[in-house]
Amino acid sequence: MTSTPSIAIVGGTGKLGAAIAYRLGRAGYRVILGSRDPARAAATAGELGVEAADSNADAATAGDMVIVTVPFAAQDATLAEIAPHVACKIVVDTTVPLVPPKVMRVQMPPEGSAAVRAAGLLGEGVRLLSAFHNVAAHKLASDTDIGCDVLVFGDDKDARGEVVALADAMGLRGLHAGALVNSAAAEAMTSILIFLNKTYRVDGAGIRITGTLTQPEA
Amino acid sequence: MTSTPSIAIVGGTGKLGAAIAYRLGRAGYRVILGSRDPARAAATAGELGVEAADSNADAATAGDMVIVTVPFAAQDATLAEIAPHVACKIVVDTTVPLVPPKVMRVQMPPEGSAAVRAAGLLGEGVRLLSAFHNVAAHKLASDTDIGCDVLVFGDDKDARGEVVALADAMGLRGLHAGALVNSAAAEAMTSILIFLNKTYRVDGAGIRITGTLTQPEA
Repeated sequence: MTSTPSIAIVGGTGKLGAAIAYRLGRAGYRVILGSRDPARAAATAGELGVEAADSNADAATAGDMVIVTVPFAAQDATLAEIAPHVACKIVVDTTVPLVPPKVMRVQMPPEGSAAVRAAGLLGEGVRLLSAFHNVAAHKLASDTDIGCDVLVFGDDKDARGEVVALADAMGLRGLHAGALVNSAAAEAMTSILIFLNKTYRVDGAGIRITGTLTQPEA
Repeated sequence: MTSTPSIAIVGGTGKLGAAIAYRLGRAGYRVILGSRDPARAAATAGELGVEAADSNADAATAGDMVIVTVPFAAQDATLAEIAPHVACKIVVDTTVPLVPPKVMRVQMPPEGSAAVRAAGLLGEGVRLLSAFHNVAAHKLASDTDIGCDVLVFGDDKDARGEVVALADAMGLRGLHAGALVNSAAAEAMTSILIFLNKTYRVDGAGIRITGTLTQPEA
């Protein structure tokens, strides 16, 4: 890619979507916010100083890269809505399969992970990745140090590298974490973090990979 | 418990088992090493300065608490062997469902996790927990700082607290991480850590929970 890609945030008025939009806007990316509700998209985009689209589909059409930030219950409908508009694009699914009310309990879908479920829903021809499962949205929405690594999953190594770079640009540490099926690890970890937040009264627990990491050759 | 419990290590001649035995012995626990091979158990126990049993079943009989450290492929047979001897005891399963040769790929069993599989194999009347999925055995076997938290899973909170205390005594940080089903998160994370070790040439990546944790009331 020769210039900074434009990033669509689908479900961009939610806490995580707005926080990612904030960080990307600050990092100099062109950000296009989508929502089911165009008035809310416009309002949130206005606050964040980014662009708004009239719908999630319009946002997905406008972005070079598409980040999907919706609750698990909305994943099916949202992906169906954007699927016609994301051929050949990098799509980053952030869905965590939380099933209320027991959100502190790991409850993976039959497909094994929300990411693999997304792959089935989007079909071939999309460069699907998953990431941003473990970052606390309220920390991401501020300028605080998040203290959380971003594990990036996907079967396309080059695409994974672009999302790792995106996370780095947001002031986080992005890490290649392997195949899309590996997303199960980070998705399940979110329930553990919610449990830790409650049990140890943490204001947004995160995870860090420890050890001395050497950057891989490009 | 009024005195230090004795700990049986089933599969104690493996890398993880021997390393746990080393740390527990150093912390002052009475450790009884079990193995399928009594000669190897005696040799390893001799090196570590702990006791050996004639079999895994004998070790399980002798321990107040039993830690199972065998490869996934040996989990079924090993648990069947010790099941008659662990009624009412705390059993800590450390099994990670790695399926060679693709150990960097998350491949969870149909039960959702090795821990839930263990629960099915051991049946009722055992205080089953899981832990120690993410620690690098070769670091645990030395006196180095591991840089890795120990997430402890189980449906019995008091039993979980005992294993958290055990991890602390070993120089690690043990953390309550919720119900036994939550074990899937740490088990899956092991494949990610192996992937990171290879990709970023790490000598034993680990995970740390970030954020300010306040000790829960007893």
